[in-house]
Amino acid sequence: MNYILRDENAIYYECGYSSDNALFLKLGSEAYFLTDSRYTVEAEEGVRGAQVVTTRELEKSASELLEKHRVKKLRYDPKEWSIYSFELLKGKSTVTFIPLIDLSHKKRIIKDSHELALLKKAAKLGRKAFSTLSKELGREGFGEDEQRLTYLARSILGSFGEYDLSFDPIVAINANAAKPHALPTKERLRKGDLLLVDAGLKYKRYCSDRTRTVFAQKGFAFDTAQSFSSRKIQKAYDTVLKAHDNAIAKARSGMKAKKVDALARGVIEKAGFGEYFVHSTGHGVGLDIHEMPYISGRSDTVIEDGMVFTVEPGIYIPGEFGIRIEDMVAMSESRAEVL
Amino acid sequence: MNYILRDENAIYYECGYSSDNALFLKLGSEAYFLTDSRYTVEAEEGVRGAQVVTTRELEKSASELLEKHRVKKLRYDPKEWSIYSFELLKGKSTVTFIPLIDLSHKKRIIKDSHELALLKKAAKLGRKAFSTLSKELGREGFGEDEQRLTYLARSILGSFGEYDLSFDPIVAINANAAKPHALPTKERLRKGDLLLVDAGLKYKRYCSDRTRTVFAQKGFAFDTAQSFSSRKIQKAYDTVLKAHDNAIAKARSGMKAKKVDALARGVIEKAGFGEYFVHSTGHGVGLDIHEMPYISGRSDTVIEDGMVFTVEPGIYIPGEFGIRIEDMVAMSESRAEVL
Repeated sequence: MNYILRDENAIYYECGYSSDNALFLKLGSEAYFLTDSRYTVEAEEGVRGAQVVTTRELEKSASELLEKHRVKKLRYDPKEWSIYSFELLKGKSTVTFIPLIDLSHKKRIIKDSHELALLKKAAKLGRKAFSTLSKELGREGFGEDEQRLTYLARSILGSFGEYDLSFDPIVAINANAAKPHALPTKERLRKGDLLLVDAGLKYKRYCSDRTRTVFAQKGFAFDTAQSFSSRKIQKAYDTVLKAHDNAIAKARSGMKAKKVDALARGVIEKAGFGEYFVHSTGHGVGLDIHEMPYISGRSDTVIEDGMVFTVEPGIYIPGEFGIRIEDMVAMSESRAEVL
Repeated sequence: MNYILRDENAIYYECGYSSDNALFLKLGSEAYFLTDSRYTVEAEEGVRGAQVVTTRELEKSASELLEKHRVKKLRYDPKEWSIYSFELLKGKSTVTFIPLIDLSHKKRIIKDSHELALLKKAAKLGRKAFSTLSKELGREGFGEDEQRLTYLARSILGSFGEYDLSFDPIVAINANAAKPHALPTKERLRKGDLLLVDAGLKYKRYCSDRTRTVFAQKGFAFDTAQSFSSRKIQKAYDTVLKAHDNAIAKARSGMKAKKVDALARGVIEKAGFGEYFVHSTGHGVGLDIHEMPYISGRSDTVIEDGMVFTVEPGIYIPGEFGIRIEDMVAMSESRAEVL
C-alpha cells in the first residue's frame, strides 16, 4: 500500500523521527522523509528506513516523487490534511488519492512490547508525580488558587522541565470539577474541598493519563480510598469508583468497546446518576493522548490484547461538584492490567 | 459577506470567546457560535454579538443553519479546514463555498487601539521577564543544561503559571544557536559561552516575542550592547545589531514588506554574511505568534500604520554559533515604534 502522512506522531511511528514541518511518503519498498533545512541535520541522524529529502516546498516535492515513481494510487487520511495543503500536493497530478480515515491510528491500535514498556514507564512516572504533587499540595497548596495549583501540577508532572506533558493539567475545586474540561479559575483551595486533578506526562513521546478526585485535607493522598464530609459526594464517589473497578475487572479481549463502556455506565445508571456521566468511558493512549480504541457507547471496535486505553468514568453535577477516577490499562492475556 | 471560521483565535477575534471545539458562522447581520456542551456555560457568558448553539455535531449543525438561512455563497479559509471536516460541512448542501486564503489573518493585519494596548503590555511583560531571567541565570544558570535552562525560561516567562507562553522558549548555547529552531540539549552553560534566548508570553491572549543573544558571564544582562571574546562572533553580532537597528530606523508606512526585509538583509549581505541569514526578517504578531504581515524578500504587502511585526535578523554559522536580535514594533505615524 502506498501512502502519505503529515501528522507529526504518525510520521514518528514510521521512522523514529519527526518535525513540525514534515511529510512521510511510503511507495512500495521505498520511503521518503521530507522536511525543510532547519531540520536536515537532526533528520539525517534520527530517521530510520527512509531517505531524507530537504525541500522548501514539501507538497510539491512529494508530488514530484509520485511522478517519478509513476504512482497510480495513494492513500491519505482526510483528517490530517488541510484543503490548502492537499491542493498543493495534488497539483496537476494524475494519481488517484484514496481517503482512509485514521490511517495511522488504525496501524497503531495494538502496541508492541517496546511501546508497552514505554507506556508502562510513562504511567509509572505519572503515578510518582501524583504522589509528589499530593505532598506539595498538602503542605503548600491551601490558600492557593486553581491557576497557581495548575502551575504546580505542570512543574511537578513535568519533573521541573525534564518531561513534556501529555496535555495541560486540569486542577479543579468543587463546582469547577463539574466541567469536564475546566479552565483554572481564581478560586482558592481550602481544607475540606473536593479537588480533582487530571494530568499526564510523556516518556520518550509516549503519554500517561491519570485522574484522581480527593477530599483535600492536611496530608491527603491521591488514593482511590477517600472519605468526603458530604454524604451526597461520598455516594457519587463510591459509585464512580465502583464503575471504574467494574470495567477494569470485567473487560476482556474479544469484547466490543461499547460493552466495556457499558460495564462502567451500567453501575452509574443503576445508582441513579446516569444523566451526569456525560462523556465516554475512555480512549486509547499512545503517541497521541487520544487515539484508538475509543471506549464509547457507539464503538463496535473489538478489544484485543496489546490495546492500551483509559478507564475514566465520572459524575458531574452542575453547580455542585464533579468526580472522575482514571487509570490507564493494557490488555494482556485477555484481561485489563492497570499501568 | 457570509463566512465561516473554525480557527480558535479567528473565532475569538470575532466574538471575544472561543474554545478548542467551535465554529463561527457569519450570515449577513446574524452570527452563530457553535460549540459542544462542555463549553456552553462559558460560551453563554463570554460570546458577544453571536447566538450560542450547543451541538454534538458542529459541521452538521452549521450546515443546517446554512439551509435555514438559504445561504447561496459562503467564504472559508482552506488553511483552516481539514478535508474531513469540510466534507461534513458540505454534506448535500447546495451552497457555493468560496475559498479565501488567510480570511481572518487579513482582517487582523491592522491592530486597533485596544489590541495595540494589549500587545504593548505583552511586550512590556516579556521584557521584564527577560530581565528577571538574566538575574536568575547569572546566579543559578552556570553548569545547568539547555533543558533545565529552558524550564527556567518557561517558568519565569510565564511568571510561574500566571501567563500562557506564545511558544516554547528557545534557549541555545554556542553552536546550538546556529539552528534557528533549536531543540534543547544536554549541553551545559559555562562562563564565556554565547547564549541565545527567544521567548514570549501572552497577555489576554495577545503574544509577545523577543530574542537576545549575549556573552554569558557573571551578572550579564539581555542588553543589545554585548562584548564577546571572539572577534568573529563580535563582528557577526555587530552586523546583526546594525541590520536590526537599520530596519527599525528606516521602516515607513507605505513601504512594501520586502523593502523592510531588504533594510536588514542589505546590512548583513554587505558585511559578507548574506548566506548565513537563512530566514526572513520578521512576521506579524497578534493573537497568533505568526501572522500577517510577513517581512520577507517575497512579500509585496504594503506596510501601514497599526501593523505590528517583529524585526529579527540573524546570522547562523553551522557548527560554530548563531546570533539573532528580535524586537516587536508597531507602525505609528508612519514609523516603527519598538514595543
